[in-house]
Amino acid sequence: MDIKPYKSKFDYSYTLGAFPTFELIKNQPDKVITVFVSESFTDYDKLKALCNEKKISLNVNDKIINKLSDKGNVYVVGVFRKYNSSLSKNKPHAMFVNPSDMGNMGTILRSALAFSIKDIAIIAPGVDIYNPKVVRASMGSMFHLNIQYFESFEEYSKLYNEADRNLISFMLDANKPITVEESEKPKLFTLIFGNEATGLPEDYKKYTKPVIIPQSAEVDSLNLTIAAGIAMYTFNKDYIK
Amino acid sequence: MDIKPYKSKFDYSYTLGAFPTFELIKNQPDKVITVFVSESFTDYDKLKALCNEKKISLNVNDKIINKLSDKGNVYVVGVFRKYNSSLSKNKPHAMFVNPSDMGNMGTILRSALAFSIKDIAIIAPGVDIYNPKVVRASMGSMFHLNIQYFESFEEYSKLYNEADRNLISFMLDANKPITVEESEKPKLFTLIFGNEATGLPEDYKKYTKPVIIPQSAEVDSLNLTIAAGIAMYTFNKDYIK
Repeated sequence: MDIKPYKSKFDYSYTLGAFPTFELIKNQPDKVITVFVSESFTDYDKLKALCNEKKISLNVNDKIINKLSDKGNVYVVGVFRKYNSSLSKNKPHAMFVNPSDMGNMGTILRSALAFSIKDIAIIAPGVDIYNPKVVRASMGSMFHLNIQYFESFEEYSKLYNEADRNLISFMLDANKPITVEESEKPKLFTLIFGNEATGLPEDYKKYTKPVIIPQSAEVDSLNLTIAAGIAMYTFNKDYIK
Repeated sequence: MDIKPYKSKFDYSYTLGAFPTFELIKNQPDKVITVFVSESFTDYDKLKALCNEKKISLNVNDKIINKLSDKGNVYVVGVFRKYNSSLSKNKPHAMFVNPSDMGNMGTILRSALAFSIKDIAIIAPGVDIYNPKVVRASMGSMFHLNIQYFESFEEYSKLYNEADRNLISFMLDANKPITVEESEKPKLFTLIFGNEATGLPEDYKKYTKPVIIPQSAEVDSLNLTIAAGIAMYTFNKDYIK
């Protein structure tokens, strides 16, 4: 296998770092092709035991690790096959329309898992979730999640149009605030967020219920990762009464 | 004036980009030394009018702009004197103990302004808030805020030890969750957050009330910007009942 820096056309990708690699092996062991480890890695025995248990090859190879990590502090690299997921019906979803920043996307996936929203829709075009920068920013959370791309909102809604699903879009010109005191929260919902710079297209107002996170007029908007984090926290089904 | 890329020992710094520069001029006009603008900037008249109103010199100079912006998309640069602030007594504070990531710090300042927490304590060592990367990630929010460095928690608490101030620390091993349903919220508080990688030192438990943002056991922790965003949103005094 010829190991080169990641390109989105590859059918495989990399976890850069011990933490996301452990998450990969534990949660998606059948997707792992191989694992590389540095001679300097201090937790070798634990990694070796896990790889043995899952029947995954482990190779000490600092040259490959240096080639793949653009900055230092990487001692473990997992190589894994990309895979397709489908969203769960009758579960809460979060939807991101044309997300463009890789670090943001990874942070959002980490928050989604933290708040038990395990089904993520991305409306294309959007970031490549398999880019190692996304994988790393997600701290490996993505290996717990179902993430599905759609060409359009219509394509999504044909598949997930349950009668009791509430489509809630976050828009800066919405009139209805969500607040920490709001008591009426649906059990089944899709939380919908637009692009970092441009927000959601106007026509999402036709299909969804627009809401806004109350915020001071002194700021232009919240950072997307913060808006999504607050929304997912607020709607977290485990805490909905 | 000899314009060089920023170093923390300088007594001045830069806003890179039109948005943070407008925020600088509007909110801290007496700190502005001068403003540089690119020939390609499309909103020149608006910037010129604002500089005239505030009696600030405006210079067309692409060479200096290219020298200061490490990536493209910068058409306006403000040069400003660093300044010291003191926190307001009898106002909510947010405290960051040894924050280390510049992008995170900027995002946090933007969230703080969004949720009307305008007084920010930083316990040293911590990022240099005047680094242009922090200024840019804050989108200029920092020019609305009072930000004060302290050598230690003790130094802070000597100055801001009001009897009715609640010191609330966010720690992963706290027993008490903050939830969206929690009704009892203090009017006067300091929300306290640790370093991105290491969290808060144990001894903060002695002086403060530790709480945790409820999160799935499947994640190690929330990203610091997300934890701080959720906490500041939840405690936002404008929405406390």
